[in-house]
Amino acid sequence: MSAEAIDDLTRDAFLGGRLHLFQPRNGYRAGVDPVLLAATVNARPGQAVLDLGCGAGAAALCLATRVPGLELWGVELQPLYADLAQGNGLENGVAFNVVASDLNALPEPVRSARFDHVIANPPYYSPGAHSVAQNAGRGVALSESDTPLEDWLAVAARRLAPRGYLHMIQRADRLPDMLAGCVGRLGSVEVLPLSAREGRAPGMVILRARKDGRAPFRLHAPCLMHVGTRHERDADSYSAAVSAILRDGQALEWPDG
Amino acid sequence: MSAEAIDDLTRDAFLGGRLHLFQPRNGYRAGVDPVLLAATVNARPGQAVLDLGCGAGAAALCLATRVPGLELWGVELQPLYADLAQGNGLENGVAFNVVASDLNALPEPVRSARFDHVIANPPYYSPGAHSVAQNAGRGVALSESDTPLEDWLAVAARRLAPRGYLHMIQRADRLPDMLAGCVGRLGSVEVLPLSAREGRAPGMVILRARKDGRAPFRLHAPCLMHVGTRHERDADSYSAAVSAILRDGQALEWPDG
Repeated sequence: MSAEAIDDLTRDAFLGGRLHLFQPRNGYRAGVDPVLLAATVNARPGQAVLDLGCGAGAAALCLATRVPGLELWGVELQPLYADLAQGNGLENGVAFNVVASDLNALPEPVRSARFDHVIANPPYYSPGAHSVAQNAGRGVALSESDTPLEDWLAVAARRLAPRGYLHMIQRADRLPDMLAGCVGRLGSVEVLPLSAREGRAPGMVILRARKDGRAPFRLHAPCLMHVGTRHERDADSYSAAVSAILRDGQALEWPDG
Repeated sequence: MSAEAIDDLTRDAFLGGRLHLFQPRNGYRAGVDPVLLAATVNARPGQAVLDLGCGAGAAALCLATRVPGLELWGVELQPLYADLAQGNGLENGVAFNVVASDLNALPEPVRSARFDHVIANPPYYSPGAHSVAQNAGRGVALSESDTPLEDWLAVAARRLAPRGYLHMIQRADRLPDMLAGCVGRLGSVEVLPLSAREGRAPGMVILRARKDGRAPFRLHAPCLMHVGTRHERDADSYSAAVSAILRDGQALEWPDG
């Protein structure tokens, strides 16, 4: 992100106006993905939460908006985004401790802490699988750059307290890599596919996994983002469950839990 | 399977009566799974097909009923089922070459042959994860016994011709093991979840993978077995697509293919 870009911020409403975030106009900007990720996290007040690759703080601060009293930490590779995230915490009255750091070289006190929850919305493109982004900040935020997906899972597993939960949102085509990264590190894996509409292949998945978990793998029915089988009008067509998340700040309940 | 059991056979209709199979009354009996598996295979007349763990031949013979002129081979660990499969081929006028063999010790000519398609409906329970089946033949057919799921994938990959396809049906909770077994062996992996009804978690999945395939992983929308959101009457409530398979011997088309 250039110095010019950081001067050009927008202030955007999330969760029906319950949360406002400053974001670079031209850099990486949070969409619905971190909002949905936060909605799936079964955190309780007082628990410790680490957001890996927190960007400007969308996922962590959406979660804190729904669940009060969290001990909230964030790690972000790009210092300008880390600063934005810290400031967005202050703006929204949320204590949010953000460190600018590479995942693989975490500083104290994060390196020695254990968290009840780790959340992550890692970059969506494999190294080399995309053209060079025009905006450097957006490029780093969207590509795996020097951090493969397996490292995200390994770091998350190391930072989790016993029985702690990881929630990660990622493109559906990375599911094999996500599952492979859980082997030997996390168990009780569940996958919630996110589909645009009924009958459409899921473009994204949310993975839930648990430190020391031993339950069988579970693949859930897809969460449908929109009603109807095709886009019929310009108006908002979000499904009731998704609208309740995006507009009302509700949780997304996992099946049987 | 005891000598007593093999004397007690039933003759069962499949594909709306297009196929009849002799099966042991008390042993492992084919349900809809091998029928669905066969319906997903994109085989063309004249191609070579190997059914790993063919049992009494349900999947292979369903496929041969829909696609004429296949060069059809089967491997089955239990000699009595292998004999049944061979006999079921004859009964239905299909040339079906069945060898009684462990997957990991295939005899000639199977060991040196390459196939355009491998299909498999491996046992559904991990070793030790189930109680001892009362019927020994059913127990072997339902448990992995001495053959882990990874071996099924490894053997399938070795037997496939370049660009050949594997189709495998398995419980959804084994998806991580299936995907792990493809790594370094098979690519262009696609997963079709099979759900009883809309909104239900898929109990089964069908995996399609390709030798030398390089396409990204794809998770498809679930195939719904039944219409409606709950069981409402004793009558057949199969969805149109599934009824076309089970009653009319139609193919199950994969999305975008």
